[in-house]
Amino acid sequence: MSQLEPEDLVAARARIAGRIIETPVMRSDALDDQLGCEILFKCEQLQVTGSFKFRGASHAVSLVDDSCQGVATHSSGNHGAALARAAHERGLTAHVVMPDNAVRFKVDAVRRNGGKVHFCAPTQQAREAGLRDWVEQGFEAIPPYDDDRIIAGQGSCAMELIEQVPDLDVVIAPVGGGGLLAGTALAAARAQRGIRVFGAEPTGADDTARSLASGHRVTEHRPRTIADGLRALVGERNLALMQRYGVEVITVEEDRILDAMGRIWSDLKQVVEPSGAVALAALIRAVEAQPADWAGRRVGVILSGGNLEIEPLIDTCRASASGQ
Amino acid sequence: MSQLEPEDLVAARARIAGRIIETPVMRSDALDDQLGCEILFKCEQLQVTGSFKFRGASHAVSLVDDSCQGVATHSSGNHGAALARAAHERGLTAHVVMPDNAVRFKVDAVRRNGGKVHFCAPTQQAREAGLRDWVEQGFEAIPPYDDDRIIAGQGSCAMELIEQVPDLDVVIAPVGGGGLLAGTALAAARAQRGIRVFGAEPTGADDTARSLASGHRVTEHRPRTIADGLRALVGERNLALMQRYGVEVITVEEDRILDAMGRIWSDLKQVVEPSGAVALAALIRAVEAQPADWAGRRVGVILSGGNLEIEPLIDTCRASASGQ
Repeated sequence: MSQLEPEDLVAARARIAGRIIETPVMRSDALDDQLGCEILFKCEQLQVTGSFKFRGASHAVSLVDDSCQGVATHSSGNHGAALARAAHERGLTAHVVMPDNAVRFKVDAVRRNGGKVHFCAPTQQAREAGLRDWVEQGFEAIPPYDDDRIIAGQGSCAMELIEQVPDLDVVIAPVGGGGLLAGTALAAARAQRGIRVFGAEPTGADDTARSLASGHRVTEHRPRTIADGLRALVGERNLALMQRYGVEVITVEEDRILDAMGRIWSDLKQVVEPSGAVALAALIRAVEAQPADWAGRRVGVILSGGNLEIEPLIDTCRASASGQ
Repeated sequence: MSQLEPEDLVAARARIAGRIIETPVMRSDALDDQLGCEILFKCEQLQVTGSFKFRGASHAVSLVDDSCQGVATHSSGNHGAALARAAHERGLTAHVVMPDNAVRFKVDAVRRNGGKVHFCAPTQQAREAGLRDWVEQGFEAIPPYDDDRIIAGQGSCAMELIEQVPDLDVVIAPVGGGGLLAGTALAAARAQRGIRVFGAEPTGADDTARSLASGHRVTEHRPRTIADGLRALVGERNLALMQRYGVEVITVEEDRILDAMGRIWSDLKQVVEPSGAVALAALIRAVEAQPADWAGRRVGVILSGGNLEIEPLIDTCRASASGQ
């Protein structure tokens, strides 16, 4: 179980200051008017490597012993690229075990950030076995979310947001494995101002909502969602922190995720990936259900990342132009 | 001919201060490394109404006499929405004559910003006749680019950039009708530090390049480019200012525009429309041709706007997800 306390976030943040970007907060009058609350978008798509994952990864890497050869993880997504970059900046090698069906642009992102990619069969067992090999050779494992170093690093995102928007009422963060959401809960608890924390989860990967409802971590989990960053099963210590701090989860259907992504692209002009739009989708759903609960509130919405495959989108533009 | 002098930009900027957004400058280490220069992206996609057009429109509207009923223009693009918003903020009506084949999201943008849309046949004659009707009824015409008020307002963009990046060597701005480029030339001249100004133009709408080469404004112009904001024929006073200040134009093919747009989406996480990516496309082409000329230079690249139809892109994401 996690030994993390809210005050631990302070040291974590100090360790990564100067490495991470203090990302800006953006607003949209149109969205504020539509939803009847003030929405403060925390722009982690502008973080190093294009997602909040770099916060936790750089914190974990900063704690690795100098005698260590390097680090290793398995990942099909943003954690791999973030860890690669964090390791590279400390002059360490990062070995990233990736399923051989990982999409090419994510493999490229790991390599572009200096990581070494090792393909394995697309099963949990093969991924863990692949990682074990590197650990046995002396590389330190840095898991993507179920790890106190990672959670403490991700907490720096909400810490910044709470400073940037001093009278914040609510924070909504997406939840996959739960590193960002658990860190957000710790940051809100540290502020001691009754800031409420919500997780935002696709209905097609609602393991966290089910786990919180049943009181224990579910094991049946067959994620089916476009939000590829949120397909992981919630981590044990992540879930325990959510329970400790009374985090609630709002689930959203696929169409809502895509609609929210479109609103962020068009209204904020920010490229976010589907996972990065889930928190806004959850807010829209919650306001529709209970508008009075949200009226006039100042709501932080974490845009968690902006890494998606651009080529098919450009092809769509090209096709539309040549059809004119 | 234009009576504008570089110092006129100062008063124009003062009139619109507090109405416009002083847009941020963004960077990309990956693009800097690739091109061997320092690129400073001026983010007009984050301007009010999503393009630099709001600068000139709000300046022109600020100069309209109090006794005037309102303003009018013809536009199929960003100028219409910008003028609508600027008029609305001053409590004036804006009539926008639009060709009946204008794309729906641009019509929606004019209406969303408080403008009144009037459709006409998709010819230059019908547009001008439609506008004349409103002018005869007492509404003041605000043309999109061939107008000193507009040029002076657009110049505020490069003025800000030159302040934000004090040791800038070059600025590249896209050119359609030439309001932004002429304003940029004036701003650079005012700085008196030898800042060079380049226009960036699609080869499929290279009227400005041809006009500068031949020494007079061409009349034959059949634009064919995905950069819909750059299809206008360069304005007379705009061209004269470019000639006076020695502006050069770099032309770029369609594929280069699309590639540059993809780089901005993926590397900067900024949604720009095709017209908004043409300045980066021109820089990439120029560096490929003469890398030594650009090595180590600090190059301002104006991202002029971010208004493009999002729905087909979201549909592409949806289709790709359901295919998995």
